[in-house]
Amino acid sequence: MERPHELPPAAPAADEAAPRAAATGTLYGVGMGPGDPDYLTVRAVRVLERAHHLVHFCKAGRRGNARTIADAVVRDAGREWALPYPLTTELPPDDPAYVAALAAFYDDAASRLADALGAGRDVAILSEGDPFFYGSFMHLWRRLKDRFPVEVVPGVTGMSGCWTRAGTPITWGDDVLTVLPATLPRARLVAHLRAADAAVVMKLGRHLPKVRAALAEAGLLARAVYVERGTMAGEVVAALADKPDDGAPYFSMVLVPGEGRRP
Amino acid sequence: MERPHELPPAAPAADEAAPRAAATGTLYGVGMGPGDPDYLTVRAVRVLERAHHLVHFCKAGRRGNARTIADAVVRDAGREWALPYPLTTELPPDDPAYVAALAAFYDDAASRLADALGAGRDVAILSEGDPFFYGSFMHLWRRLKDRFPVEVVPGVTGMSGCWTRAGTPITWGDDVLTVLPATLPRARLVAHLRAADAAVVMKLGRHLPKVRAALAEAGLLARAVYVERGTMAGEVVAALADKPDDGAPYFSMVLVPGEGRRP
Repeated sequence: MERPHELPPAAPAADEAAPRAAATGTLYGVGMGPGDPDYLTVRAVRVLERAHHLVHFCKAGRRGNARTIADAVVRDAGREWALPYPLTTELPPDDPAYVAALAAFYDDAASRLADALGAGRDVAILSEGDPFFYGSFMHLWRRLKDRFPVEVVPGVTGMSGCWTRAGTPITWGDDVLTVLPATLPRARLVAHLRAADAAVVMKLGRHLPKVRAALAEAGLLARAVYVERGTMAGEVVAALADKPDDGAPYFSMVLVPGEGRRP
Repeated sequence: MERPHELPPAAPAADEAAPRAAATGTLYGVGMGPGDPDYLTVRAVRVLERAHHLVHFCKAGRRGNARTIADAVVRDAGREWALPYPLTTELPPDDPAYVAALAAFYDDAASRLADALGAGRDVAILSEGDPFFYGSFMHLWRRLKDRFPVEVVPGVTGMSGCWTRAGTPITWGDDVLTVLPATLPRARLVAHLRAADAAVVMKLGRHLPKVRAALAEAGLLARAVYVERGTMAGEVVAALADKPDDGAPYFSMVLVPGEGRRP
């Protein structure tokens, strides 16, 4: 089977491009920002230009979005390594089989990355948004951080990109902001929404009907803004109350802007 | 009194650098990121290079931090306009005199910016972190947005910079993140901290003793990390429990990293 852009086997042969490594390589977690490549940081661009390997997560058979953002900077495909998830939404995340499959996937990937790092090659993990904010990068980071030098490059979060394109400040004055995964049970969503001044609900997917109901129960439906693919091609911004359907792709979220002090 | 870098008077004379404006200028809100200029975005750099006027807020008699970040990009001081706050911590923010003074300050600044924009000049407001996340920019934006073209450039937030330099992911799996201003009463801080999986407490200043007590009451003191001037010169990262004093400058915050799912 041809897998041209995936990771090499666990013990890759030395190749000509590898430095004559006395030192180990550096593991980079690169925040790729919300989608528009103009929102990459100066540091992210530099790391993308120079790292030996550019690693991105993806759904099997698809190109990862983080890698697509990098197109503006990276022209040569030879440095790419794709990490296709063994599963995404086939099992609930608290299913032991899901946990076991993901753990094996991260263990295997970390082992291959360790071989490259040990051979003196710099490895950059492309992370949508900010690497330390709900990022898959963290699962490789915790397996490798005690063995290799690490640099994390913070990024503009997806939620910043969304409230920017929605044209609405998210927090004013002393507003409390709560960021909620849509995966939570409805009652917990309602309790958090009632306590917050401003809110962001992430990871919508099939949970949008539940999120809509929770917002209504918390009295916030009229303030809620739906944003899909914020800062990317195909961007959608709409009042949630005006959105007729409950379809919500992976790159979508709901914003509830704060209404705090504004002298 | 010499005020070389402040805004010109409300009706500035046309000068040679002004474009022969049929069209109005654009109001830019530029996210300057957490402090390290390498964390400026590609778009922010471009706007900083090209705008006719670079406006920053500051404490009277001091240079604003947002302007200092721009030093890496902006070499000519001629485009600078400083906006010194009429007061900062002299009065509590809910004091009517504070609200009135700030409102007059923003009204006056917006009026001067409107003159520049109306004369076809592009005005960039330098905003620490992200412009729509607790930014003073928003107070000018809401006064001008319906009269002039606006572009907001999202930025890496100060909190992303802080958790990056603390070397700790903030949210894993389905963690709920709550962002709290330290100005809240202690009981509200405790209630929010108890409900959150991960938390960021901003705007510490003189509120650190109260925040420390609230974290202890919520059982989170042992997990709390103190970060001062994250990504900037003089950066401090420490377990809050190990910080012996209660001094906390404006650029400091407390992080409570989440402990969610990590396969």
